[in-house]
Amino acid sequence: MISKSMEQLMKGNSVIRALFEEGKEMAKEVGAENVYDFSLGNPSVPAPEAVGTAIKKILKNENSLYVHGYMSNAGYEEVREAVAQNLNQRFGTDFEWEGILMTVGAAGGLNVVLRTLLDPGDEVICFAPFFGEYRNYVHNYQANLVVIPPNPPSFQPNVDMLAEMITERTKAVIINNPNNPTGVVYSAETLDRLEVILKAAEERIGHPIYVISDEPYRELVYDGVEVPFMTKHIRNCIIGYSFSKSLSLPGERIGYLAVPKAADDYESLLEGLAIANRVLGFVNAPSLQQLMIRECLNEQTDVAAYDKNRKFLYESLKDMGFECVKPEGAFYLFVKSPVADEKAFVAEAKKHHLLLVPASSFGCPGYVRIAYCVSYDMIKRSMPAFKALAEVYFG
Amino acid sequence: MISKSMEQLMKGNSVIRALFEEGKEMAKEVGAENVYDFSLGNPSVPAPEAVGTAIKKILKNENSLYVHGYMSNAGYEEVREAVAQNLNQRFGTDFEWEGILMTVGAAGGLNVVLRTLLDPGDEVICFAPFFGEYRNYVHNYQANLVVIPPNPPSFQPNVDMLAEMITERTKAVIINNPNNPTGVVYSAETLDRLEVILKAAEERIGHPIYVISDEPYRELVYDGVEVPFMTKHIRNCIIGYSFSKSLSLPGERIGYLAVPKAADDYESLLEGLAIANRVLGFVNAPSLQQLMIRECLNEQTDVAAYDKNRKFLYESLKDMGFECVKPEGAFYLFVKSPVADEKAFVAEAKKHHLLLVPASSFGCPGYVRIAYCVSYDMIKRSMPAFKALAEVYFG
Repeated sequence: MISKSMEQLMKGNSVIRALFEEGKEMAKEVGAENVYDFSLGNPSVPAPEAVGTAIKKILKNENSLYVHGYMSNAGYEEVREAVAQNLNQRFGTDFEWEGILMTVGAAGGLNVVLRTLLDPGDEVICFAPFFGEYRNYVHNYQANLVVIPPNPPSFQPNVDMLAEMITERTKAVIINNPNNPTGVVYSAETLDRLEVILKAAEERIGHPIYVISDEPYRELVYDGVEVPFMTKHIRNCIIGYSFSKSLSLPGERIGYLAVPKAADDYESLLEGLAIANRVLGFVNAPSLQQLMIRECLNEQTDVAAYDKNRKFLYESLKDMGFECVKPEGAFYLFVKSPVADEKAFVAEAKKHHLLLVPASSFGCPGYVRIAYCVSYDMIKRSMPAFKALAEVYFG
Repeated sequence: MISKSMEQLMKGNSVIRALFEEGKEMAKEVGAENVYDFSLGNPSVPAPEAVGTAIKKILKNENSLYVHGYMSNAGYEEVREAVAQNLNQRFGTDFEWEGILMTVGAAGGLNVVLRTLLDPGDEVICFAPFFGEYRNYVHNYQANLVVIPPNPPSFQPNVDMLAEMITERTKAVIINNPNNPTGVVYSAETLDRLEVILKAAEERIGHPIYVISDEPYRELVYDGVEVPFMTKHIRNCIIGYSFSKSLSLPGERIGYLAVPKAADDYESLLEGLAIANRVLGFVNAPSLQQLMIRECLNEQTDVAAYDKNRKFLYESLKDMGFECVKPEGAFYLFVKSPVADEKAFVAEAKKHHLLLVPASSFGCPGYVRIAYCVSYDMIKRSMPAFKALAEVYFG
C-alpha cells in the first residue's frame, strides 16, 4: 500500500541511481575492469588525510558525550562560527554564526529550505538543464517545479525568460553553480541580471523570492575560472553547500546552509530552517563530522586529478567527432547525442559497457552527461569503447 | 516569506527543544551546576569504547573512497546483512539483508516510511501519550494524525478504541515501545490484541495498515522486563530503530528500518523506502557510522547507571508525595501534576531551576516528563529543589 505519489516516483526512479545499480550488476557479469561507469558523481579522489587525522584527534581529546551527543538542531555553535569566519575571510562576506546551519549534505539542506518556504501549490523555478532531484524535492512538499528551457550552446541560464514565469505563488529559484550536468560556471553578469529581474518581480508580487544556490561544486573549477560568490550578487540568497565533492565525503552527509544578514525575514528564516531540520527527521547534521569539518575548512581536494581527466576526455571525444560543452567546473562533460533521441544513444553506449546518463533526466533531451570523477586509468581503458561508439554514428 | 505551515510550527515550536535552549541560557546566568535540566532525552552514559576503537580501525584499514563514498541509498549491503543476522540471532527472526535499510536515526527512518506510505489527506493513528514529533512528521506529508486518548494508570495503549478510529484513509499506526514519555513497556498481550484488530480492519477497508514501531529504547529496560519483539506479534510491521540511546550516539544520526519478509507489498515497500531516503535528502545514512555499527552490534550501554537514577528518583519523588508511573523502560519518569494545569506546575518547577516537560506536548495534559538520563550527582543535588517544589503543593 505504497502512496500514489511514491508509485509515480517508482515509475520514474532516478535514472542515475538505476545506472549505478545496473553498473554493479554488469561488473559482476563481465568483470569490474570491463565496465566504464561514468554515471555517478561519486568523487574518485580520496578524502584529504587531514580528515582522518581530525577524526582521530577529536576521538582522543574530546568527551564522548560532546562528540556524539545532541546539540542545537542547527549544529554546534563553535562549528557554525568557524564556517562563518572561514567564508568571511575567503570571500569578504559578513556571515554571522547564527546564519550558518549545519545540514545532512546539500540534499538535506535543500529539503530543509523547501520545507521552510513552501505550502502546497507554491512554485519553485529552475533553469534546465538541472539536477533532476530538484523536482522530487519540490514535490515532497506538494509544490510545483517550473522549468525554464535550456540555453545552448553557452548553457548560461536563460534569465530573460524568468520574469514571465514568476507568479504570486513563486517562492524560490534554484540555481546550481558550477552546474551539474553541464560543467558551466554562471557568470557574475548573469547573476547581476538575475538580481535585477528578481528585485522587480518581488516588488510586483509583494513578497521575497529566495534564490537557493546549490553549490557542492564551488571549489571544483579549472583554468583559473572564478565562481562568483552568490550572496555578493543576490541579496535574498540561501546557499546550500556540501563537503561531498570538495572533501570527497559524499557518504558522510555533511554540509551547511548559509543565510546572509541582508536576506528578508532573516530571523524567522533561521528559526524556520532549524525547525525544518528537526521535523524532517535530520534532527542535526552528524556530530562527529561537524567537529571534523571545523578542523578541515581550509583543506582542498586534488582538483588537478579531475582536471587531467577533463582535458583528456574532452579532447579525445572531440577528436572522435562528438560535440561537447567545454566544462569549466564540476566533474561532468556534457555531450550532444549524435541522434535526437539520446536514450537510444545511451542504450547503444551500454552495448560497449559505457554507462552514460541521458540528459532527459536533467530536463535537456538530446544530450548525455559523462561524470569524469573516475580513475584516469579507466578513462584510458574506455577509449576503444568510445571509438567503437563513434564508429556507429560517424562511420 | 516563511510558509503558512512553518508559521504554525514556529508558534508551537517543540517545548522540549525550547526548554533545552532555555536551560543553556539559565546555566549562563546561575551557573550550570545550579540548573537541574531533566528536559532532553540526551544519554548521560558515554558511548562504549568499542565505538571509537571501531572508527579508528576502519580509518586505518579501509580505503577512503569506500569509507566516505556513496553506496546504495539503502546502505552498505554488508552492514545491512550484519544487522539482519544480528536480529535473527537475538530474536529468532528471519530478516533478509534486503529488508534492512540504514537511516539517519529513527526520526529519519520514520519520515522515510511516512513519505513512502502517505498521500495528502491520509491518516496515521497513534496512542497518547506519544512523542510529539510524530504529529510534525505526519504533517510533513499533508496527512493527519489521529490520537487515541491516554489510558491511565497503566498507560498500556487503548487498543479497544482502535477499531472505531480506522477509516479507509488509515495507512499506519505508530507505536513506541518502551514508551516515551511514560517508560511503560507494551505487553505481548496488548500487541496480540492490536494485531487481531488490525487484521479485521485490513479485511474491512481492503488494504494493509502498517504498524510503524519506533523503538530507540528497545535495549533500555529494567527489572528483567522483556520487550516483546514486534514482528513476532504484528505481521505488517516496520521497525524504526536508532542507536541514539542504546549506544549513546544521538548526534551521529544512525539507525535502521527493518521490514519482515511477511509484510504485504514487501518488494515495492523496500523500493519505495530507498527512494524516499534519497528524495527526502538523506541520500544514505552516514557512511563511517554505518561501518562502525557493523562492529558494534553486540555492544551495550551501561543500563545499570540509568537504573540507579530511576530507582533513586522514583523512590524519592514518591516519598515527597508525587504520583509517578513506575518506569520499566526508556529513561523517563512520568509524574502526575499536583494541579490540573501541568504547565503551571512546570512554571513553578522552573523557579527552582528544575526543567521538566509538560506532557501536553505528548497529548497527555496533567502530567510531566522527567528525563533521568542525567548524572546521578545532578539528581542528588536536585533533591532540595524537588523538596521545595513538593512543599508548594503538599505543604
